[in-house]
Amino acid sequence: MFTSETKVRVRYAETDQMGIVYHGNYFLYFEVARAESIRQMGFTYAEMEKMGIAMPVVDVHVRYLRPALYDDLLTIKTVLKEIPVHHKIEFHHEIFNEQNELLCAGKIILYFMEKNGMKRTVMPEHLRKKLEKYFN
Amino acid sequence: MFTSETKVRVRYAETDQMGIVYHGNYFLYFEVARAESIRQMGFTYAEMEKMGIAMPVVDVHVRYLRPALYDDLLTIKTVLKEIPVHHKIEFHHEIFNEQNELLCAGKIILYFMEKNGMKRTVMPEHLRKKLEKYFN
Amino acid sequence: MFTSETKVRVRYAETDQMGIVYHGNYFLYFEVARAESIRQMGFTYAEMEKMGIAMPVVDVHVRYLRPALYDDLLTIKTVLKEIPVHHKIEFHHEIFNEQNELLCAGKIILYFMEKNGMKRTVMPEHLRKKLEKYFN
Amino acid sequence: MFTSETKVRVRYAETDQMGIVYHGNYFLYFEVARAESIRQMGFTYAEMEKMGIAMPVVDVHVRYLRPALYDDLLTIKTVLKEIPVHHKIEFHHEIFNEQNELLCAGKIILYFMEKNGMKRTVMPEHLRKKLEKYFN
Repeated sequence: MFTSETKVRVRYAETDQMGIVYHGNYFLYFEVARAESIRQMGFTYAEMEKMGIAMPVVDVHVRYLRPALYDDLLTIKTVLKEIPVHHKIEFHHEIFNEQNELLCAGKIILYFMEKNGMKRTVMPEHLRKKLEKYFN
Repeated sequence: MFTSETKVRVRYAETDQMGIVYHGNYFLYFEVARAESIRQMGFTYAEMEKMGIAMPVVDVHVRYLRPALYDDLLTIKTVLKEIPVHHKIEFHHEIFNEQNELLCAGKIILYFMEKNGMKRTVMPEHLRKKLEKYFN
Repeated sequence: MFTSETKVRVRYAETDQMGIVYHGNYFLYFEVARAESIRQMGFTYAEMEKMGIAMPVVDVHVRYLRPALYDDLLTIKTVLKEIPVHHKIEFHHEIFNEQNELLCAGKIILYFMEKNGMKRTVMPEHLRKKLEKYFN
Repeated sequence: MFTSETKVRVRYAETDQMGIVYHGNYFLYFEVARAESIRQMGFTYAEMEKMGIAMPVVDVHVRYLRPALYDDLLTIKTVLKEIPVHHKIEFHHEIFNEQNELLCAGKIILYFMEKNGMKRTVMPEHLRKKLEKYFN
């Protein structure tokens, strides 16, 4: 299992007139958490795109339990329960506020795709090797 | 069953460097579709908030099948399969491009809440009456 | 002089916890207005990009006079005071609410650039001809 | 003179299909920089709102020189050239990339307003005292 933690502070622009973070903006936080997870493995998503691989999101499921508020310093826990097989990778995210309350939980599925032609491909070997360390 | 259709044109800001609409931005389209659905019933979400009722999103599930592109004129089909009971309402959305291809399908669950205190409440009687016509 | 008008309805996501449209979101409205202006000339910005020309924004100046509110149906007036010479084009925008109050006024300067290499270029001849009609 | 520096990493959602940060998203970075500036003075904008003071943006002017790219770690330099008099405060921002190239420069003017009634007011005495240290 691979796990990582990322901190994000809520921006004013991310709130709406309900006085809470707009539900669609949690996807920005999850994206930051995935990018930082990959960076912690010693790789970057930016490098992967330069190698010609894109990772479009194909499925999301999020449950919202408590609102995040302006200026909250959020902790996003990211878990990969298994090494991706084939073209699919599944991230589990949980977001906590500074009182350690669970605000929301999400599952995001992405595909590995070749940028040219957008055909399905697999996780780059380079990244897979870095990831395997966490699953032994 | 209540159904409605709304058109939205993709803005440049809604694309990302993959050249497609960012996955988190579909929630803006769904939100527009819900607001227009309520307007078609002869009511507005803005009026509901003025009456002291907010509708926070509590659960979302979206599957992305094909990308939406800049300047696409999208059609969002919105379906209410049943009149909400208690504090919960469930919207089903499908987005189609101009070639009538299904781009994504989502289910969004919201709660009726009192703005003061954020306690659960039910759909305003006024709106329920307008909605009941579609279910006989 | 070329002038055009575009309508945009304020989305919930575009508000912030001050209960008004976030100042950075007016740039989305200006962008929609520019795209619709070009469409009214019988052309699209999307076509221009396909021809290999991009129009990055290089300078913006906006004054905010009154807030736009959720669900407001805004009217954006767009003016081109002169046919662009060289690589530069200057749009003037004003946004009005349904009470015809001026909410904000902006000037946006963009460049015509070749997408490959990002060198400065000029307005495509095709578009210039359509535009010249408005300046005689 | 008060100066501060803030780091922000570019998110995927902030890019557009031109492969660069969308011009409207720089306002998010400026906002983060202002919030962190105030935090460095030993105060927060969130506290100010709780005291009943809001700071709407009333004027922005930004020049874009070079694009910011996905995953760039940006440095935002923020300068207050003078202690605000009356209801007005003027922030100067410059954004640099990791190669220390200037990407854009902006001036943002905000007003101090009472949240109830949205009347103009002045900087809270508490914050003014913290700020005065930097101007002697």
